[in-house]
Amino acid sequence: MTSQVRFEEISPADFFYRNRDLAGFTNPARSLYMCVRELVENSLDATEIIKVPPNVWVQLEPVDDQNERVLRLTVKDNGIGVEGDKIPKAFGTVLYGSKYGFKQSRGTFGVGGTMALLYGQITTNQAFTVTSSTGGKEIHEYRMMIDIVENKPRVLEHNVLPNQRKWRGTIVRVTLEGDYAGSRSKILEYFTMTAVVNAHANIVFVDPKYRTYVFRRVIEDVPEPPKEGKPHPLGVDVETVNRLLANTRSRDIRSFLTSEFQRIGPKTAEEVLRLAGIDLGKKVKEITHDEVTRLVEAFRNYGKFRAPETSTISPVGVKFIEAGLRAIYKPEFLHVVQRPPSSYSGIPFVVEAAIAYGGAIEPSEEIHLLRFANKIPLLYDEKADVSWKVISERIDWSAYKVQRGMPVLVLTSICSPKVPYKTVGKEAISDRPEIERELTIAIRECARELRLHLSRLEKREAAKKRLSVYARYLPMIAKNSAYVAETDPPDVMPLLKSIGVTAKMVEDEAKAIAEELAS
Amino acid sequence: MTSQVRFEEISPADFFYRNRDLAGFTNPARSLYMCVRELVENSLDATEIIKVPPNVWVQLEPVDDQNERVLRLTVKDNGIGVEGDKIPKAFGTVLYGSKYGFKQSRGTFGVGGTMALLYGQITTNQAFTVTSSTGGKEIHEYRMMIDIVENKPRVLEHNVLPNQRKWRGTIVRVTLEGDYAGSRSKILEYFTMTAVVNAHANIVFVDPKYRTYVFRRVIEDVPEPPKEGKPHPLGVDVETVNRLLANTRSRDIRSFLTSEFQRIGPKTAEEVLRLAGIDLGKKVKEITHDEVTRLVEAFRNYGKFRAPETSTISPVGVKFIEAGLRAIYKPEFLHVVQRPPSSYSGIPFVVEAAIAYGGAIEPSEEIHLLRFANKIPLLYDEKADVSWKVISERIDWSAYKVQRGMPVLVLTSICSPKVPYKTVGKEAISDRPEIERELTIAIRECARELRLHLSRLEKREAAKKRLSVYARYLPMIAKNSAYVAETDPPDVMPLLKSIGVTAKMVEDEAKAIAEELAS
Repeated sequence: MTSQVRFEEISPADFFYRNRDLAGFTNPARSLYMCVRELVENSLDATEIIKVPPNVWVQLEPVDDQNERVLRLTVKDNGIGVEGDKIPKAFGTVLYGSKYGFKQSRGTFGVGGTMALLYGQITTNQAFTVTSSTGGKEIHEYRMMIDIVENKPRVLEHNVLPNQRKWRGTIVRVTLEGDYAGSRSKILEYFTMTAVVNAHANIVFVDPKYRTYVFRRVIEDVPEPPKEGKPHPLGVDVETVNRLLANTRSRDIRSFLTSEFQRIGPKTAEEVLRLAGIDLGKKVKEITHDEVTRLVEAFRNYGKFRAPETSTISPVGVKFIEAGLRAIYKPEFLHVVQRPPSSYSGIPFVVEAAIAYGGAIEPSEEIHLLRFANKIPLLYDEKADVSWKVISERIDWSAYKVQRGMPVLVLTSICSPKVPYKTVGKEAISDRPEIERELTIAIRECARELRLHLSRLEKREAAKKRLSVYARYLPMIAKNSAYVAETDPPDVMPLLKSIGVTAKMVEDEAKAIAEELAS
Repeated sequence: MTSQVRFEEISPADFFYRNRDLAGFTNPARSLYMCVRELVENSLDATEIIKVPPNVWVQLEPVDDQNERVLRLTVKDNGIGVEGDKIPKAFGTVLYGSKYGFKQSRGTFGVGGTMALLYGQITTNQAFTVTSSTGGKEIHEYRMMIDIVENKPRVLEHNVLPNQRKWRGTIVRVTLEGDYAGSRSKILEYFTMTAVVNAHANIVFVDPKYRTYVFRRVIEDVPEPPKEGKPHPLGVDVETVNRLLANTRSRDIRSFLTSEFQRIGPKTAEEVLRLAGIDLGKKVKEITHDEVTRLVEAFRNYGKFRAPETSTISPVGVKFIEAGLRAIYKPEFLHVVQRPPSSYSGIPFVVEAAIAYGGAIEPSEEIHLLRFANKIPLLYDEKADVSWKVISERIDWSAYKVQRGMPVLVLTSICSPKVPYKTVGKEAISDRPEIERELTIAIRECARELRLHLSRLEKREAAKKRLSVYARYLPMIAKNSAYVAETDPPDVMPLLKSIGVTAKMVEDEAKAIAEELAS
């Protein structure tokens, strides 16, 4: 009688295969952009972790005369490399990734890079290759595909090559279907913006027409990589506390608190436990579900924790932002601000902002906004981003002498072990009040400097105008006075020069008068 | 020397636990809305599959005097039920769900409902309960939690109760932390809108203050449930073809094509295989990777497939939309259109649209837009949706006599086995040209009917005006003429009545004149 429902379990690879829009792979143009982006971001993370200046080579090649949409994407880096036996799983399993714990990184754990490879496979049915070495004696080269149903790698070929030059890095090569014509401008913008906040990186991009774009390193230093940190008591929920309890070496709850969390010393531990109504000496193994709930509740109500540690964050850096913006926009004015670390819900973050004016910046009705999060550019959904909200609603630009049609650029950067993205595609950041506040302060500080610059410009302009009045009329007055007095006109140039008027200015004004009379 | 990267694999449950924003669980208000929504949509799917009129009971109860954010959510339905031994996995595993294959449904496979339970667990650390029966002799009741690391259920308690009344359905009860004050209006809007397109459903919602909202069934029929279908050749990629090849009973490629796909008969199969350069009699087991790729390529280039079958779709229905809108808005005008099935990229879809005018619809500067997809309301990101694009850019409302400030409501519904959502939260539909076109046609058709209605209103208004002129002046003229002619004034009422003027109108006009003279 009753119809039956059949059940099935699908693998994470299968889930993302069925719902690839969720990861930003929506159409052939956007998908190509996503593939480039995900692999480049993995490469930059791989160099940052060992603190070497990144050299990233990206190439898109046509491989099919019949179909210009079939392209081979190669991304090569000089990063940490992956050990031979770990390559298949690392590149052929969704939700398998480097265990970075609680610290800032560009990617989403175990999805982005593998999705790019998966996308290539499902659009072209071709295997991809990964070549990598950690700098030891061997280079490993795998040709493989992903078994989507099982979510595991299927190795088609594996070669071990001698590594005579001690090369270290990774090369990924994947054939995919993409619309380069439709994504070219986004991809180039992506590289340009990536270069702005990774001024220590060399990036070369060769497009399907073999046009080569070089984004050269403009600074030799390498930023300090983020470190892994312990969780802050305001950043955990019951699940996290349960995991920490399951893995701790501490025997009693007090030493558990002081050893597994940041910002909890013996005194704080006691106060929190009292608040939670838990015995100070309670054994970790005897902690009940109910007590864990009360502990988390007590964390939230305690109210006296110091702000989270910030060693887990690696902001872009004032020097890097300056170098990046100068290299690309050559602005006549530039001011960069890095705010002190702040936090939302126990998660630390650092906001940086810059305003640039003039140079290669196009005058525009709207202010140019460049957005970054954890050193990656955000190119979509600008109007949904907290930065747009701040520059369009929170800042009264007229108070800073900024008018429509001026060549003004605002850069914002947010770095955090957990960036509160609004969307899966990592494109817009939500308007957490703490982040909005920091952004507003940082941009206002830049805007004040810009106002000074614009005031100086105005003064210079006004002074120039004043001088041009002298340059125009003093010689005329002198000539007329001399005519009335029937003397030779005096030489007014020494006088004019003493107030800053040059012979050239006098000459220009004379010409201008002549033209005005003639017209 | 070289630092090593540690790798780890995480379970799907762990992935969504770490990235719950991806599924719409962003803050306590939105998360509460998501929990209600996901469980209600599962309940509606569970009744639709067996074609019974849904009875869904939803209750939010406060459970903690100290913290009004801790709520118990109960959702009870009279759907198909889940067999006892399948309950733990079905509710305690992410990416485990009913295998519905290729047909329309409300939910995302194996994520939504489990996410609601997972959310409750991580915010309150409490177990949830599932009580269900398929109508047999037993009712199964489980108290369980989800082991997030392992992505598997942890059963704390299991009771089997006798099912004397042959009850069939499911009750889910989960304790969670949510902000009802912040989500109340969205939740009520959600129920109201759900009732509009599920006019055959009884839904009762009891809120934390024990206010009860009843959305009563207004139509007794139950819509025909969608059926599972074979894939259309334009809707598959190489991965899908590989899976079909692995599971087919066909031995040669030609019979594979005719038996595993819709819209491929023997003749079409031959033409496609010739186009792909594959031997007609080639054994399925001998098909190479390269040939699969060429086959998919040939599907795309063939150009002569009939449109996809539409049995996989169950649109809302004109009758249901009418009943739903009338019950809630009591409009003076209503027109509903269901378009014939269409398709995008091999995926069939049906567009329905309605325009309502007057009644309880509030006059407004902007047109009210109600959006639905697969019978669920879409309440967020309106401006990003294709329907908004159509009503704001594609329709010239002035051509249909619609002006700002009129009480106009537009309803759009898209039903498809694969709705092209822009976001994971299932909130906005992308502007696929085929969908945009169908929406435009449907709304224009409704708008033409609205224009007729508004024209009739105008004419009636004009006629009324004309009559009021007679009502005002005829008695006066009669009186004055009688005065001039020195006779008694004639009784003009029979004449006025013959053209539609009532005694009441004459009286009103007389009063109006008196007032005008007095002022």
